[in-house]
Amino acid sequence: MPGRHHLYIPGPTNVPDRLLRAMHRAQEDHRSAAFPALTRSILDRLPAVVGSTTATPFVFPASGSAMWEAALVNSVHPGSRLLAVRFGQFSHLFIQTARQLGYVVDVIEVPWGEGAHPGLIEAALRADPAHDIKGVLLVHNETATGVTSDVGAVRTAMDRAGHPALLYVDGVSSIASLAFEMDAWRVDCAITGSQKGFMLPAGLGILYCSPRVVRALDTVTTPRAYFDLRPMLANNAQGYFPSTPALTLLWGLDEALTMLLDEGMANVVARHRRLAEGVRRAVHAWGLSLCASNAAWYSDTVTAVVVPDGADARVVIAHAASRWNLSLGSGLTQLAGKVFRIGHMGDVNELMLAGALAGTEMALLDAGIALTPGSGVAAAASWWRESAPLSVH
Amino acid sequence: MPGRHHLYIPGPTNVPDRLLRAMHRAQEDHRSAAFPALTRSILDRLPAVVGSTTATPFVFPASGSAMWEAALVNSVHPGSRLLAVRFGQFSHLFIQTARQLGYVVDVIEVPWGEGAHPGLIEAALRADPAHDIKGVLLVHNETATGVTSDVGAVRTAMDRAGHPALLYVDGVSSIASLAFEMDAWRVDCAITGSQKGFMLPAGLGILYCSPRVVRALDTVTTPRAYFDLRPMLANNAQGYFPSTPALTLLWGLDEALTMLLDEGMANVVARHRRLAEGVRRAVHAWGLSLCASNAAWYSDTVTAVVVPDGADARVVIAHAASRWNLSLGSGLTQLAGKVFRIGHMGDVNELMLAGALAGTEMALLDAGIALTPGSGVAAAASWWRESAPLSVH
Amino acid sequence: MPGRHHLYIPGPTNVPDRLLRAMHRAQEDHRSAAFPALTRSILDRLPAVVGSTTATPFVFPASGSAMWEAALVNSVHPGSRLLAVRFGQFSHLFIQTARQLGYVVDVIEVPWGEGAHPGLIEAALRADPAHDIKGVLLVHNETATGVTSDVGAVRTAMDRAGHPALLYVDGVSSIASLAFEMDAWRVDCAITGSQKGFMLPAGLGILYCSPRVVRALDTVTTPRAYFDLRPMLANNAQGYFPSTPALTLLWGLDEALTMLLDEGMANVVARHRRLAEGVRRAVHAWGLSLCASNAAWYSDTVTAVVVPDGADARVVIAHAASRWNLSLGSGLTQLAGKVFRIGHMGDVNELMLAGALAGTEMALLDAGIALTPGSGVAAAASWWRESAPLSVH
Amino acid sequence: MPGRHHLYIPGPTNVPDRLLRAMHRAQEDHRSAAFPALTRSILDRLPAVVGSTTATPFVFPASGSAMWEAALVNSVHPGSRLLAVRFGQFSHLFIQTARQLGYVVDVIEVPWGEGAHPGLIEAALRADPAHDIKGVLLVHNETATGVTSDVGAVRTAMDRAGHPALLYVDGVSSIASLAFEMDAWRVDCAITGSQKGFMLPAGLGILYCSPRVVRALDTVTTPRAYFDLRPMLANNAQGYFPSTPALTLLWGLDEALTMLLDEGMANVVARHRRLAEGVRRAVHAWGLSLCASNAAWYSDTVTAVVVPDGADARVVIAHAASRWNLSLGSGLTQLAGKVFRIGHMGDVNELMLAGALAGTEMALLDAGIALTPGSGVAAAASWWRESAPLSVH
Repeated sequence: MPGRHHLYIPGPTNVPDRLLRAMHRAQEDHRSAAFPALTRSILDRLPAVVGSTTATPFVFPASGSAMWEAALVNSVHPGSRLLAVRFGQFSHLFIQTARQLGYVVDVIEVPWGEGAHPGLIEAALRADPAHDIKGVLLVHNETATGVTSDVGAVRTAMDRAGHPALLYVDGVSSIASLAFEMDAWRVDCAITGSQKGFMLPAGLGILYCSPRVVRALDTVTTPRAYFDLRPMLANNAQGYFPSTPALTLLWGLDEALTMLLDEGMANVVARHRRLAEGVRRAVHAWGLSLCASNAAWYSDTVTAVVVPDGADARVVIAHAASRWNLSLGSGLTQLAGKVFRIGHMGDVNELMLAGALAGTEMALLDAGIALTPGSGVAAAASWWRESAPLSVH
Repeated sequence: MPGRHHLYIPGPTNVPDRLLRAMHRAQEDHRSAAFPALTRSILDRLPAVVGSTTATPFVFPASGSAMWEAALVNSVHPGSRLLAVRFGQFSHLFIQTARQLGYVVDVIEVPWGEGAHPGLIEAALRADPAHDIKGVLLVHNETATGVTSDVGAVRTAMDRAGHPALLYVDGVSSIASLAFEMDAWRVDCAITGSQKGFMLPAGLGILYCSPRVVRALDTVTTPRAYFDLRPMLANNAQGYFPSTPALTLLWGLDEALTMLLDEGMANVVARHRRLAEGVRRAVHAWGLSLCASNAAWYSDTVTAVVVPDGADARVVIAHAASRWNLSLGSGLTQLAGKVFRIGHMGDVNELMLAGALAGTEMALLDAGIALTPGSGVAAAASWWRESAPLSVH
Repeated sequence: MPGRHHLYIPGPTNVPDRLLRAMHRAQEDHRSAAFPALTRSILDRLPAVVGSTTATPFVFPASGSAMWEAALVNSVHPGSRLLAVRFGQFSHLFIQTARQLGYVVDVIEVPWGEGAHPGLIEAALRADPAHDIKGVLLVHNETATGVTSDVGAVRTAMDRAGHPALLYVDGVSSIASLAFEMDAWRVDCAITGSQKGFMLPAGLGILYCSPRVVRALDTVTTPRAYFDLRPMLANNAQGYFPSTPALTLLWGLDEALTMLLDEGMANVVARHRRLAEGVRRAVHAWGLSLCASNAAWYSDTVTAVVVPDGADARVVIAHAASRWNLSLGSGLTQLAGKVFRIGHMGDVNELMLAGALAGTEMALLDAGIALTPGSGVAAAASWWRESAPLSVH
Repeated sequence: MPGRHHLYIPGPTNVPDRLLRAMHRAQEDHRSAAFPALTRSILDRLPAVVGSTTATPFVFPASGSAMWEAALVNSVHPGSRLLAVRFGQFSHLFIQTARQLGYVVDVIEVPWGEGAHPGLIEAALRADPAHDIKGVLLVHNETATGVTSDVGAVRTAMDRAGHPALLYVDGVSSIASLAFEMDAWRVDCAITGSQKGFMLPAGLGILYCSPRVVRALDTVTTPRAYFDLRPMLANNAQGYFPSTPALTLLWGLDEALTMLLDEGMANVVARHRRLAEGVRRAVHAWGLSLCASNAAWYSDTVTAVVVPDGADARVVIAHAASRWNLSLGSGLTQLAGKVFRIGHMGDVNELMLAGALAGTEMALLDAGIALTPGSGVAAAASWWRESAPLSVH
């Protein structure tokens, strides 16, 4: 199909040309005397992205979800008991991973479309006076439903319960896009990958550990090899990696950090919020609703849109792909056919999203869903004009 | 500014990533035994783009406008008399080039916004019974005004006048985008560059000559060196070039030919027509008019939009650039401030243009020009939906 | 430093520009209807590289060494007993990984510079009539010492012992460069990564499993999540991956397979042998010896060179890097300072290696090691001329 | 053929990956408010490359040889008389270009292998007391023979003759590689292209004009259009170009300037001299001689090697290409079969040339030319070691 493909799934996101260029390089010797400069440039700057000055970051050749495993096997003993909230496919998979690794997970079930109610977590922890629960698993931004939970409120709930469990936060679709305050929230393990807010292809798992976790690495008895953080920590301290690193992606990550920090994390967050609000106004102008059940849960990186009863979201997605060269995300498991998802994270701007909204609108009409043509783009554009920085002219 | 830049000037156009990749290569020996395969792949396939089986194509490291000079110095004697129609900045520059080279040019002045009236050309030629006029200079698609002339009708007018002048057609913003029938129209020199329909960066001038021009190369006495077609012809026949060719752009051109011919020239033309019609419907929905004075002149590669009295198109362009990361073309010389131009040629599709139209609409509003928000995208999208190939679903 | 860097470490290897181009692409939707074509193109062609028609290949975002873990946790129960031969750093790390995962490893210690003596393995297996040993761990090509073991002979020894243990072969620095006959040798798990014979950056772990291993996946009780082959198998069958794949590297792998299979695996193997023989002749012409203790162990992908007593290989490596822009591999652990290593695998040819040998020679002289200048290149070149295909002229 | 191609023709040269990356970019609007920053970065820095603070540089989409024409048509009247020295194919073509454009050229014939004898030029100018001769055409580095002339000595000769002719210097294969002192030598027009010392693909012609030439632009009556410097000068002053510039190559040129000026022109020159001396020592070690008839003429960018009587240099070149993936330059016209040429300019280093010399040696042997194997590389390497900067170790 002529012209650019329009990729608005919730990851992988659009990789800026600048990052593609940064990765188009001849390989180098990862054991050379010059190599540590790269390692340090990355590791020294990663914490700023999650609002931390104390976290230790780890970068693995792996997918983001591999960091669920890396976080757990390095921080709790075999068979430990964990507490998790399930409200979407990714919170489900986090739980499943923990169970496959032999951990026991207490699950608080929440309807998909809602997020982590701090009160429920507090109650569950209060019901564990023996502190048998060793960790709380939380998906910050549930990519399946477009729901963002309030990590700070969860931390407050944990404090209120006086419970010492570790706090594990999956930030795969939030970190580097949404406000993330690892230090303020006292997150113990923050988990992400390269292919969302970091604007890179998939292939790197990124894990941030609190000092509490790092201090306890040697005491944890869960068997582990590839994801063992100890050799990584020792090698990183010298500027190296224990096995051959995914150099190409490291060069990209280094450049992505420059882009993010040059823009400023507060600006990155504000941009995502402002762009996302345009998308939501478009959805409402079409007369459709979000999967997120109320505004408090709205995600600024992905919007899951519910199609009217009788319509099939898969038909919308299929028309978008075949007629308009537009990729939208599908509804997963219990949401299949009921929602489609628009990703709006990473290196995006107003006109990219205007094109995506125009295509979504056309695909909705193709699927027989009634709406006023142009209404979505008009609503988004009006918001973006209203909220845009003053022109320099 | 985050996200992709939106480039909708009438050239250079968006270079597809596939062509950027094709150009990202180590250099090779342009005198090697293997090299002629590339030369032949390009030269053998170029004529199909202009509907010719008889033309000889020439490719120079040069801008497209350099081919005005290359065409003239190789085909007419010093001081020859030529006939031209002027209705925009590029027809003006073609005339100016001819005069700088010492040719005498009779100019038919036509209001900007109209094109080449065949009747005026016929009359001018009939007024030259001695056949003193050696060539007719015609800009097929006037990029400054978004006006396409009917080359076939001009040829018919020349035939009716029984005049043997050569027909020079500037196809810089038409070739590889609009229908071009070099053989059927008996064009003698067709002129273009790499940065429009060929979807490449600027840097190659492309000239097609009819057999009549090629046969007469040795008889023409205009002094010429770099643009002398004779050494080019002799070297090309062996698969080589007389001086070091711009290899990078040649690799790009070879791949661009594959893209164009795989899509099929008729499909390329139909796509441009269909996309352009959407842009025009958007302009009309905004209540604005085109610089092209009537539908017969509408260009399918560039739309010049007239802003209302009292408004300044430069303000629209400035807002588009600074607020929306969108480049629009400006009005040139007598049209400065009165029009802005939207380029829609090359590797474009519906959603790219929807984004461009959304941005244009926002910039028009920023400039204080009243319109119904969303009306442009809605009108374009409705047309595109109506005219789209049936979905495979 | 001006000019190209000369990278002759034993991995990562030189990535051909063609593969860099293949990876320089905008991302796509890994859940689209079009995506399975890529998955199938890769998975269908991977077995041919290891001489197999029956193996099931798995591709992970991970380093090659991660596949040690992936192989073990999917094929043997927790605490199982394994047999391994240790004769270099990588055979050591394979053993260490197994132990970290809780397996019990019987180790046959062999001097570094030798390989896996089939007789020792046979004896060890005969000493286990109860078939308590569940697997034999073998590093095909020990990258630390430049030693290639005879996998076929090990298989024969296992057969002679009548022992049913699984055969795990680390082919990280052999697969796609040296002869590898997975079916003929009845290898159960073959392990490699993207950054050696596949000529790509690091970032993909590649694991081939025999039908015997695949059949038993559900019965193995070792806890596993990221490396669990079952969801990978299920998703792959549909053309997808369970988590977001490292798309960039997959595009590269697909193109690398085309390069390898177009050249033909037998030709790839012969090229490596012929090029490596030139390197060895250079080493001998310098009067130096190989770490590999006799010709039967010589590796065709990496040559570890022993420096004379009193010399320090690290000085050679340092001069190569700082004066000649040449990266050589260092001696690891017990070989530190005693050997340096020349990698000659992947996309290499005679003149690349001639440059590397010239630089090595210069660095040896810089380090005060006496040799006849030019002798190494002369010896290599003579062999390459002698063994070169006849010129077409 | 596997591995990198070895390109050692005297242009195009090896384009550093850094420059390929700089050119791999989406197009931008060459009429935008942001664009002049690029124009100025290039034009402001170009003079330093030729040792000038007073020259005005011009950059055209064109080949380097087009600048012969651009220089002449902008500086002398039609039919003017010029003086030139001919001692190779490129000095011949410069003369031919001038004649094709209608100028009258007095030619001093010199045997190929020698350069511009200042005494002959002085004599010719003294023989023109009426100052009828308007310009002296000089090829600084004759690429066909590997001969560098002494421009400063020619200027002194012109001064001694008290002759006001303009001095035109073709620096296509010298500028950005050899010492070039435009101001000190009072060169009026210095001519080059992008594909040699600037390390880029061909496609840009670069012309430097002295203030004397710039001042007289309006008085020169030679017809000209594309190469007319006046609109270029006027547009450049505003940061723009009169026609669409070859953006891709401009980005590359901007980055190439950064590379050159960061290294420092004196270091660039010294590097070329040192590397070239190694090549010459190799040639002498093989028992062969240079086309340049004595050391005073030796070029540091290209070495033309004379094969022994009875041998055919074309056979050497053919073996190099087909057996060793090495491109060498051929002998042109009267030197065909008698010499082959090794290019060693631009982004090269010792080991790249060591590979090229090894391949040349192998091809010489393939062609039946007797030499001591390894002797060339040994001689070059010994020189490079001897002359290398002290190692940091």
